Amino acid sequence: MKALVIHGPNINLLDKRNKSIYGDYTIEDINNLIISKAKELDMEVEIFQSNSEGMIIDKLHSTIKEQVDGVIINPGGYTHYSISIRDAIELLDIPVIEVHLSNIYAREDFRRKSVIAPVCKGQISGLGIFSYLLALEAIRNINN
Amino acid sequence: MKALVIHGPNINLLDKRNKSIYGDYTIEDINNLIISKAKELDMEVEIFQSNSEGMIIDKLHSTIKEQVDGVIINPGGYTHYSISIRDAIELLDIPVIEVHLSNIYAREDFRRKSVIAPVCKGQISGLGIFSYLLALEAIRNINN
Amino acid sequence: MKALVIHGPNINLLDKRNKSIYGDYTIEDINNLIISKAKELDMEVEIFQSNSEGMIIDKLHSTIKEQVDGVIINPGGYTHYSISIRDAIELLDIPVIEVHLSNIYAREDFRRKSVIAPVCKGQISGLGIFSYLLALEAIRNINN
Amino acid sequence: MKALVIHGPNINLLDKRNKSIYGDYTIEDINNLIISKAKELDMEVEIFQSNSEGMIIDKLHSTIKEQVDGVIINPGGYTHYSISIRDAIELLDIPVIEVHLSNIYAREDFRRKSVIAPVCKGQISGLGIFSYLLALEAIRNINN
Amino acid sequence: MKALVIHGPNINLLDKRNKSIYGDYTIEDINNLIISKAKELDMEVEIFQSNSEGMIIDKLHSTIKEQVDGVIINPGGYTHYSISIRDAIELLDIPVIEVHLSNIYAREDFRRKSVIAPVCKGQISGLGIFSYLLALEAIRNINN
Amino acid sequence: MKALVIHGPNINLLDKRNKSIYGDYTIEDINNLIISKAKELDMEVEIFQSNSEGMIIDKLHSTIKEQVDGVIINPGGYTHYSISIRDAIELLDIPVIEVHLSNIYAREDFRRKSVIAPVCKGQISGLGIFSYLLALEAIRNINN
Amino acid sequence: MKALVIHGPNINLLDKRNKSIYGDYTIEDINNLIISKAKELDMEVEIFQSNSEGMIIDKLHSTIKEQVDGVIINPGGYTHYSISIRDAIELLDIPVIEVHLSNIYAREDFRRKSVIAPVCKGQISGLGIFSYLLALEAIRNINN
Amino acid sequence: MKALVIHGPNINLLDKRNKSIYGDYTIEDINNLIISKAKELDMEVEIFQSNSEGMIIDKLHSTIKEQVDGVIINPGGYTHYSISIRDAIELLDIPVIEVHLSNIYAREDFRRKSVIAPVCKGQISGLGIFSYLLALEAIRNINN
Amino acid sequence: MKALVIHGPNINLLDKRNKSIYGDYTIEDINNLIISKAKELDMEVEIFQSNSEGMIIDKLHSTIKEQVDGVIINPGGYTHYSISIRDAIELLDIPVIEVHLSNIYAREDFRRKSVIAPVCKGQISGLGIFSYLLALEAIRNINN
Amino acid sequence: MKALVIHGPNINLLDKRNKSIYGDYTIEDINNLIISKAKELDMEVEIFQSNSEGMIIDKLHSTIKEQVDGVIINPGGYTHYSISIRDAIELLDIPVIEVHLSNIYAREDFRRKSVIAPVCKGQISGLGIFSYLLALEAIRNINN
Amino acid sequence: MKALVIHGPNINLLDKRNKSIYGDYTIEDINNLIISKAKELDMEVEIFQSNSEGMIIDKLHSTIKEQVDGVIINPGGYTHYSISIRDAIELLDIPVIEVHLSNIYAREDFRRKSVIAPVCKGQISGLGIFSYLLALEAIRNINN
Amino acid sequence: MKALVIHGPNINLLDKRNKSIYGDYTIEDINNLIISKAKELDMEVEIFQSNSEGMIIDKLHSTIKEQVDGVIINPGGYTHYSISIRDAIELLDIPVIEVHLSNIYAREDFRRKSVIAPVCKGQISGLGIFSYLLALEAIRNINN
Repeated sequence: MKALVIHGPNINLLDKRNKSIYGDYTIEDINNLIISKAKELDMEVEIFQSNSEGMIIDKLHSTIKEQVDGVIINPGGYTHYSISIRDAIELLDIPVIEVHLSNIYAREDFRRKSVIAPVCKGQISGLGIFSYLLALEAIRNINN
Repeated sequence: MKALVIHGPNINLLDKRNKSIYGDYTIEDINNLIISKAKELDMEVEIFQSNSEGMIIDKLHSTIKEQVDGVIINPGGYTHYSISIRDAIELLDIPVIEVHLSNIYAREDFRRKSVIAPVCKGQISGLGIFSYLLALEAIRNINN
Repeated sequence: MKALVIHGPNINLLDKRNKSIYGDYTIEDINNLIISKAKELDMEVEIFQSNSEGMIIDKLHSTIKEQVDGVIINPGGYTHYSISIRDAIELLDIPVIEVHLSNIYAREDFRRKSVIAPVCKGQISGLGIFSYLLALEAIRNINN
Repeated sequence: MKALVIHGPNINLLDKRNKSIYGDYTIEDINNLIISKAKELDMEVEIFQSNSEGMIIDKLHSTIKEQVDGVIINPGGYTHYSISIRDAIELLDIPVIEVHLSNIYAREDFRRKSVIAPVCKGQISGLGIFSYLLALEAIRNINN
Repeated sequence: MKALVIHGPNINLLDKRNKSIYGDYTIEDINNLIISKAKELDMEVEIFQSNSEGMIIDKLHSTIKEQVDGVIINPGGYTHYSISIRDAIELLDIPVIEVHLSNIYAREDFRRKSVIAPVCKGQISGLGIFSYLLALEAIRNINN
Repeated sequence: MKALVIHGPNINLLDKRNKSIYGDYTIEDINNLIISKAKELDMEVEIFQSNSEGMIIDKLHSTIKEQVDGVIINPGGYTHYSISIRDAIELLDIPVIEVHLSNIYAREDFRRKSVIAPVCKGQISGLGIFSYLLALEAIRNINN
Repeated sequence: MKALVIHGPNINLLDKRNKSIYGDYTIEDINNLIISKAKELDMEVEIFQSNSEGMIIDKLHSTIKEQVDGVIINPGGYTHYSISIRDAIELLDIPVIEVHLSNIYAREDFRRKSVIAPVCKGQISGLGIFSYLLALEAIRNINN
Repeated sequence: MKALVIHGPNINLLDKRNKSIYGDYTIEDINNLIISKAKELDMEVEIFQSNSEGMIIDKLHSTIKEQVDGVIINPGGYTHYSISIRDAIELLDIPVIEVHLSNIYAREDFRRKSVIAPVCKGQISGLGIFSYLLALEAIRNINN
Repeated sequence: MKALVIHGPNINLLDKRNKSIYGDYTIEDINNLIISKAKELDMEVEIFQSNSEGMIIDKLHSTIKEQVDGVIINPGGYTHYSISIRDAIELLDIPVIEVHLSNIYAREDFRRKSVIAPVCKGQISGLGIFSYLLALEAIRNINN
Repeated sequence: MKALVIHGPNINLLDKRNKSIYGDYTIEDINNLIISKAKELDMEVEIFQSNSEGMIIDKLHSTIKEQVDGVIINPGGYTHYSISIRDAIELLDIPVIEVHLSNIYAREDFRRKSVIAPVCKGQISGLGIFSYLLALEAIRNINN
Repeated sequence: MKALVIHGPNINLLDKRNKSIYGDYTIEDINNLIISKAKELDMEVEIFQSNSEGMIIDKLHSTIKEQVDGVIINPGGYTHYSISIRDAIELLDIPVIEVHLSNIYAREDFRRKSVIAPVCKGQISGLGIFSYLLALEAIRNINN
Repeated sequence: MKALVIHGPNINLLDKRNKSIYGDYTIEDINNLIISKAKELDMEVEIFQSNSEGMIIDKLHSTIKEQVDGVIINPGGYTHYSISIRDAIELLDIPVIEVHLSNIYAREDFRRKSVIAPVCKGQISGLGIFSYLLALEAIRNINN
């Protein structure tokens, strides 16, 4: 079983962002924990980061040809306006889970609306790195 | 470590609700899975259901005197307007995780706004019964 | 054939409310007229009043176990925000008819929106006590 | 006692409209049932249909010179914007009851607002042909 | 002369709430000050707290049978949506004064709108415990 | 010099409308005063009333072929939504003045917006019959 | 194969309207081009113009009895509010194509919303007379 | 009979404003025409201009002590937000007529709403200087 | 201890305003009661009225140099839009209490929003003259 | 004569999208039909697809240097928010026609607004592949 | 070359305002820096402060008679609602630059909209005192 | 000291855009003036242009590793929706100044809102090329 993890824009510099919101982690810390968890769940995992909306769409499309069983996506700032990413998710047949490190509902008004959530299987937010790890379990569970 | 699970209104009759949204489970099925998972995680769990806003608030308050390490709440219809439940959650010192069986963002417009989410630690939605089980893990993890 | 009539909050003190809107009736007057009409239609009728949202939901749920063929509900102030009562109605298999003594569309702006109407079979408003009596006939008719 | 029944636009082709919303009736079926009910209630009834806003207003005005005791109007699409029909109703001294075959609150957003309801005596919606028949009874009752 | 003081939801745990907003008082502190002030004004006072919307409505209704000259209500979270409590207040003949410990206009947007204020005699907010004491004086004054 | 006066819907029954808003006049009273004033100003005047949007548009169009120097229109209920009448006015080369007997800004919210005003030369409202007479003077003045 | 072309209000005086928006054509020019194009496509065409909402609805209804394979409608000002025309289109079984001479999205805000578009097969706007001709081709194509 | 004419802010420099909207007049031109018209109508007239909201309110108040039979006010920019001027007008017993040189409904969106209109007797807009002169006649007429 | 009382626009003519809202008092009546109450509380009081936004701001500023312990302000119509008065209050170090004679929440929609309330210590409304007297007590109490 | 056809995001996987909306075509099917039609019209055609907003803008810019007579663009999800693509279209001197396979006005609310339409020559939507072919004809026609 | 600098309301007490937003400067500090900069640029400068909307308008008007080449205005709280100041700026022929010490877009929602900006040449905000100095340079530059 | 200047989408073709808004400059003209000004201020400057949101984010990130003291960004069309660019700016420690050639507040409504402004140090708009040059000075000044 294989999962694809997509980190959206600015997550590559997570350790530079507001620590009271995002904690103290680097993207490498997150990736290492994801890889460990995947091993524990006996899953394969591919991790991808891009600041480009178009490249995130291309990557989502790539799962059609490659053998992927589920996608975990943290769409970053694109969460709130990228109908193009939404359309890309909607055309996939595999489960996609939206994750957020922070509780987007406890922040600025414009962050409280995800245009992507309606086409995802589910959403996990506010649990820091653990949001990703629970999503991995969910992918595992859905494909059992 | 002990968690309190609160089922809000109409969840007692889950098996009567729209199956394409809520699946085929009874509340007993959910509760049994929660209890199993809690055992697996070596946690104690108390489960409470009420259709009454006031009694849900009373139950939330009760965690102050009793030894509870985290709350998992599915506020049902109250999700969308109960500022009183929100205030009750806000005054607690322990983590509260909001869960939804269905993806509330893929349903009617009025279900897309949770007045409770901003004061919770995190939110897990759309993953069916698994939403509760992941929340249990999250409570466990936060208290480690 | 049996109907359940639910009076929502403040209807118990109907005779204390604005007479130019609600007329001069007590709740007992209404109930007597309902009982007479039911007899005329050869129906059984149970009448219930509560100011509590939770207890109204519980009563709606009770129709699943008991033999009830239709519900007439005047949700009072809950008309305008109780998504929880809406959810309780939505899960019932029997017809529910929303009634209002006054013409809610001729009053304050906030009274013009019923969150409950979309899940009811129909709505009768503005005809005073007669709203209830016509609803009884409708229940009778639907079940013929 | 005499009632005037006004069918608004597109009701003349009722049997061509969405059957899951409007059922299987022709306008003749409705009219026959109205006439039978009127007889049963010992009332005279005149039935009028037009697709023209202006002609509906003219017809409403005609009740001032002729002996009419109440009006039942299904304003069709005009329900949602015809302030001119509203004004025509407002100037009448006799009761006007707005009826709808379908539950307009369970359909598209724009159908949930009636600009006409505030000046009617009452509104009956969602009960199919029965909406008209109950309205006849209401007219009868108000004039007793 | 007798006043009824109603504390709405979560006020029973006032000392657990955000101290920068609510200060350091327990509900007992407030109640003692109210009782002292009442004595000073030569008034009788009954104090009631509930987290339940329905029970608050029942209590408001009870003033019709009992001898009460005015009500002071802090509706807590219900301030912002309970049209049912509003309706209960509207049917009373005695003055009702809405009080808030905090300045609700200096907090979150959703707290800036009281659905209850339009049917109260007046509103006093932002003066901490003193809001209640001034309301007592107002009740006294209105009944002089 | 010739003016066309167009009375929109329901003005034919002016004396049946709310007297506190519209006063005590019949349409004949208005027309007589208009004719007198026109004589005084040495103008010809044609007066037209219709409840039909389409016929009002046709009449507006007719001014292109006939010799008319200005139009005075009281669009009645169409004021608030008839973009079709607006388009008809916009294509005329002669001045059109919108008049209202009542002060539309002192009435219901929906009456405060005229979709027609932006394409008229000017608007006179709230002065009763005098609104028409002043408009006649304005037409006279513009064509001098 | 036969198409019905409906010109809505004010199109009869097209040559009087704003030339920078509508160009220099008369309705006769348009009609001649439509007839030529129909011949070229080996189609029959009927052309109808009315300023009356009711008569446009009647005409739409007439296609049920007569042999018509598609409708091309330029609803003019009715585009933006006539839910009654919308309902008439919705009950037809043949394709209806909405056309506009001008680009309605490049004009006033209120012109940017068509209440009719959701029930049409498609919409062609901004291409002047050519909008009609392309629509004819589309009707041809859909019926092949 | 005496009228007070109040010119609001920026009208003192009318000749510097957008000529396509305001024409070519100076405030002196307007005032001379007003004085002539007043003579013609056998009225006394006082003319006042101020850029200060407070001084306009003071002037409105002064009519209570002095013998004034009507006020004509062009509130300029204050039209759109000065609830204080509105309150000052509302407390007067004499008729106040709001005038505008330009058609405020044909300009920017924010100019289309007058907070003052609801408390005036009537409004005349879009007729240039003639708006003032017609208002004088209206004052004369109302006081006859 | 010294308090400054600021009466905003139109309060100088209180006795001319709507008596059903403002009662029968003159500003002198209010001032006399304020002075008496101040004496009773052993406070000095300065009373100021102006219809000018600028002068109210100047007066608020003056409290920085003079020895003032609290301000009571009835901002009248400025309540609803004067961000400039708001800014002036915000920069003061002493408590400011907003008072209203009428219950602004029971009046027109536009009166229900105070732009000033968020920067005041508290707000007292709807209690007539007593609103001022309670505010005096509050100032006293805060400075104890 | 040469046309550029730009397919926006997700159109490369058209055959994976909702068949009830997009039909059964692959992008290759569409491209072949476009090429055939272009030949028939004696036009050259270049076809470009990208999921990247930036690359679509670059391509639009390229038409300034290369010899292109018109652009046909299906902006996909970017239709609804890409002001940057809008700006790129606005600076071109050649006609741009917006096309949509589906009727965007019959889908989710957020799809009903195109930020791009106001700067295009015209828009063709809802006619499936035929939308592109008609657009080709339009380009041909405009350049004749 | 001469510039006029207008400080709006509350800027006279800048040093009393929120230091985290406005820094530590007095108005004298700002004025001294402006005067120095003007000298450096070989410009004359007049500085004016008022809390009164009317006096700010008067001052803006005065530039028509006096020799002024540009205006720098910090409208303070009036930024957000003074259409009267907007109108005064709009009638001037010289460039007006709006400046703000703080970044008004990073503050409360109501501060994010300037009704004045649309009629100014440009806007400089968020750069503290430097906003004024850059504006001086801009005035210099525009007049070169 | 070094500044980075980022030109957003479509600025590369500035000379093709609406000259009445953007003037007559090419991007090379702007860049030359920026370089001259930087020399004058003894600053180093790097200039970057891209039409791609992702590449603009990457460039903003690059300032963390390279020695840059401030950023000047003209986000073009991205100004109005790119929360991703906003997030990239927010995580930088150096001052970012948003510049616009045109006065975005004097253009279409959708251009009046910058989602980026709240996280910038300041904003300079409407001053043409001079907007960039003043921003350079501001960067210089902040770093002194």
